[in-house]
Amino acid sequence: MCRWMAYSGEAVPLELFLFKAKHNLIDQSMSSRSAETPTNGDGFGVGWYGSREIPGLFRSIRPAWNDFNLRDLAAQLDTRLFLAHVRATSLATVQETNCHPFRWKNWLFVHNGEIFEVERMRRDLLMAVAPEYFGNVLGTTDSELMFHLALTLGLEKDPPRALARMAGLVERVGREKGVAEALWMTLGISDGRKVWAVRYASDRQAPTLFHSRDMRDVYAVNPELEELVGPTARVVVSEPIGAYSQNWVEVPQSSLLEIDGSDLEIRPFAPE
Amino acid sequence: MCRWMAYSGEAVPLELFLFKAKHNLIDQSMSSRSAETPTNGDGFGVGWYGSREIPGLFRSIRPAWNDFNLRDLAAQLDTRLFLAHVRATSLATVQETNCHPFRWKNWLFVHNGEIFEVERMRRDLLMAVAPEYFGNVLGTTDSELMFHLALTLGLEKDPPRALARMAGLVERVGREKGVAEALWMTLGISDGRKVWAVRYASDRQAPTLFHSRDMRDVYAVNPELEELVGPTARVVVSEPIGAYSQNWVEVPQSSLLEIDGSDLEIRPFAPE
Amino acid sequence: MCRWMAYSGEAVPLELFLFKAKHNLIDQSMSSRSAETPTNGDGFGVGWYGSREIPGLFRSIRPAWNDFNLRDLAAQLDTRLFLAHVRATSLATVQETNCHPFRWKNWLFVHNGEIFEVERMRRDLLMAVAPEYFGNVLGTTDSELMFHLALTLGLEKDPPRALARMAGLVERVGREKGVAEALWMTLGISDGRKVWAVRYASDRQAPTLFHSRDMRDVYAVNPELEELVGPTARVVVSEPIGAYSQNWVEVPQSSLLEIDGSDLEIRPFAPE
Amino acid sequence: MCRWMAYSGEAVPLELFLFKAKHNLIDQSMSSRSAETPTNGDGFGVGWYGSREIPGLFRSIRPAWNDFNLRDLAAQLDTRLFLAHVRATSLATVQETNCHPFRWKNWLFVHNGEIFEVERMRRDLLMAVAPEYFGNVLGTTDSELMFHLALTLGLEKDPPRALARMAGLVERVGREKGVAEALWMTLGISDGRKVWAVRYASDRQAPTLFHSRDMRDVYAVNPELEELVGPTARVVVSEPIGAYSQNWVEVPQSSLLEIDGSDLEIRPFAPE
Repeated sequence: MCRWMAYSGEAVPLELFLFKAKHNLIDQSMSSRSAETPTNGDGFGVGWYGSREIPGLFRSIRPAWNDFNLRDLAAQLDTRLFLAHVRATSLATVQETNCHPFRWKNWLFVHNGEIFEVERMRRDLLMAVAPEYFGNVLGTTDSELMFHLALTLGLEKDPPRALARMAGLVERVGREKGVAEALWMTLGISDGRKVWAVRYASDRQAPTLFHSRDMRDVYAVNPELEELVGPTARVVVSEPIGAYSQNWVEVPQSSLLEIDGSDLEIRPFAPE
Repeated sequence: MCRWMAYSGEAVPLELFLFKAKHNLIDQSMSSRSAETPTNGDGFGVGWYGSREIPGLFRSIRPAWNDFNLRDLAAQLDTRLFLAHVRATSLATVQETNCHPFRWKNWLFVHNGEIFEVERMRRDLLMAVAPEYFGNVLGTTDSELMFHLALTLGLEKDPPRALARMAGLVERVGREKGVAEALWMTLGISDGRKVWAVRYASDRQAPTLFHSRDMRDVYAVNPELEELVGPTARVVVSEPIGAYSQNWVEVPQSSLLEIDGSDLEIRPFAPE
Repeated sequence: MCRWMAYSGEAVPLELFLFKAKHNLIDQSMSSRSAETPTNGDGFGVGWYGSREIPGLFRSIRPAWNDFNLRDLAAQLDTRLFLAHVRATSLATVQETNCHPFRWKNWLFVHNGEIFEVERMRRDLLMAVAPEYFGNVLGTTDSELMFHLALTLGLEKDPPRALARMAGLVERVGREKGVAEALWMTLGISDGRKVWAVRYASDRQAPTLFHSRDMRDVYAVNPELEELVGPTARVVVSEPIGAYSQNWVEVPQSSLLEIDGSDLEIRPFAPE
Repeated sequence: MCRWMAYSGEAVPLELFLFKAKHNLIDQSMSSRSAETPTNGDGFGVGWYGSREIPGLFRSIRPAWNDFNLRDLAAQLDTRLFLAHVRATSLATVQETNCHPFRWKNWLFVHNGEIFEVERMRRDLLMAVAPEYFGNVLGTTDSELMFHLALTLGLEKDPPRALARMAGLVERVGREKGVAEALWMTLGISDGRKVWAVRYASDRQAPTLFHSRDMRDVYAVNPELEELVGPTARVVVSEPIGAYSQNWVEVPQSSLLEIDGSDLEIRPFAPE
């Protein structure tokens, strides 16, 4: 229902993964391999970490493929860590505050998926957001809500635990409202140092999620990438970017992935 | 902090009051007489009643003065009742869902003013919105919140009472949060048949509000208006439109105005 | 490279063909059957004739499928004649002035197709626009240029002839610049009374174009349409709308179609 | 009729002059001291030089004061040379391609002012643009036209001469069309190394233009600026930014200013 990617590693030009690679994220905004949403033209956003304390955020309701400002920005910026997202929605409001990533201080959050029948739950879930984070809810997406629930449940202290607790809360409220299997998601989160990703669905059929292999393995097959992407690079994507499918490993269902430098660890994920 | 107007009467071209009159509403978006907000360029909206059950709604984040679609729409549409609003905000999100009017079925609502320190109260106020209306809250303004509180408190059955109860609720929650005089507002509301307006502030210094005289009195002074505006016309404005100030009567502080056809009644307004 | 439609007949709600019909124009903006451009999300426009001398025009760079203002406008307006267009472009500027229809007084013009290698010709073609129409060129599309060339060559007096002369001019300038087969188009034009459409390409492989059958034949097969669409209705489309393909007749290559009330005439079209 | 600024010197955060300084450029978009256009809310743009061959460009039709993307971008970017502009227009099209700066390779161009009765001249002036630059004209402003005429007349080789020739051409064509005093302008231009500014009007009453003093003189009066702005900084503004008017020197009528590092030279300017 959207496409996203996260990058961590040596500084790269933002445009490398957004515009230059084969079947890059912007290509995916026009024409992805997602059965549900081949087109993701309901806005986009990119959050990037540089030399400031907080990441920059550029969000727009324009389809990513026709926004000249995005092309220019991507051409100008080098960044060591970024999250980017192209959105597809059905008749939900398209406005900048409904585009991902969402941001809280140094944290960024993107989501692909949905909370089924969220309208039954939204009021209860919104009320579960702690007052200190409440004023940061600027839009009306279930995605933004999930982010603020995770913050409420301790994201800034223990991200994996907070995400598990958030998933548990959503599923619990869902069941109370008669929705047996409410959650269907992949998530991308960063605090500017690490990147976390989650692939989970209540029905165990979450949307696709892939991570890149260690760059040394990638260079062995594709040496031309050595001058483009540094050795500590790690990338997480909804669907593979680039010309070489063997560079991507599928993230298993019900998993959490943690990237710290070039180290990548996958652990089981279950709602708490 | 915004400028708005309401019209009820024989069908007129929308552009008459929006673009053609001297110091019309769109002029006021660029340059009003408001001390706080001479410029109201943070979006606009118009809701108009025609032959359908529900009114049409056109909202945009563009400054009203440079939106060609608005000019064209106003040139094409005749309407017997409309509410129009140009917005000024300080650093609150500018998005279409934060533009007025807000709509619920056949109801339209515009607001000029604010709830002081609303961020302290927003969570509590949002939770006071009944579940049946909650899904209609698409933005993040205090204005939209006030509308949905009024709906919750019976707007569809007894508008004057619901508005008084809404004002009472906001002031009460305000006091609980340490804000002594929370409310500062003019409101414009319609169900497609009648128009209500309120001028009220906790500190008794609400923004300006005017209503037009009976058209027969207006024709007596300005006969050229007879071919432009029908005899049952009633107009409510934040600040006078047109070349003749004597055609406008100031609405007193702490008042509610009810327009039914050409009948206009003013009653005291107090929070309940 | 875009999708468009034209309607002429008894007044219908604009939303009937834009939003309500199966595989309507807005569906086609997300997902058309065009091989070149399955998605037409680079803006849209609708021009509609009502009670005014000139038609209304609403153009937006938003993808048609996510613009709430369009939905609302279409729900509110009845119109006896309109042209609507959803645009697909590759990296040309997306701005309102590049959206169709284009308008000159009571004339509207939409186009699907392109002038090949137009950048070689644009300067010459622009200079062929007569001074009286030159100030009406607000954007940078070849489509708008073609409209103003047709105006220059007598569109207001003899539309079929002017369109043939325009096609001839474009092909001639094309050949001068080394482009053997420059033109590839369907056109939709109206003056508020009649509708003209053209299907022509220099290589005789113009994009698809269909017209509706006489409504009496349509009612015979689909009697439920009798209460939705009046007996004099005529519709021209890039690709069929609705559930019944037998209601549509393909317009032959190199043809001009003229609609006057319910009368529909097809004549050969050749550049002059 | 607009407000602009140019900065050259040590890298500064873009937000310093756009958002942080007293009466900064974004303040001027809402409320400038210009008699003609106190509000400049018809779009904005910023072009900045960094590590790439060509400058970045971010242009938007949003009023500068309510665009969150601009705030974020300005907070994230450091730049050694930039041009920024906030636009005011009367009823000319507001679209991104009509926002300044305009760009050609490594060149940026901003303009405040107008060509009087440009509609009489636009066709002739457009035809005077050389074919090699013609495809870079994406909008419909006289400003963009002046830039491309300057390019045609040798801007890339000899900027002061090209600007003089451009002014001469515009005045000459103006007189041919019956406009005695066509030009009224300040211009800001850069190639990424130097900055040029011009203050000229046919009637010798061009809009205001100021340049900053040598920073050593500025530090002597305002030592707190030493940690904010480097010693080679030079700034050109339509109207002074900051709290200290004595830091600004008015550029005389009919002058051209050339900035090369911290060197600033003013020479007479006359149309050729």
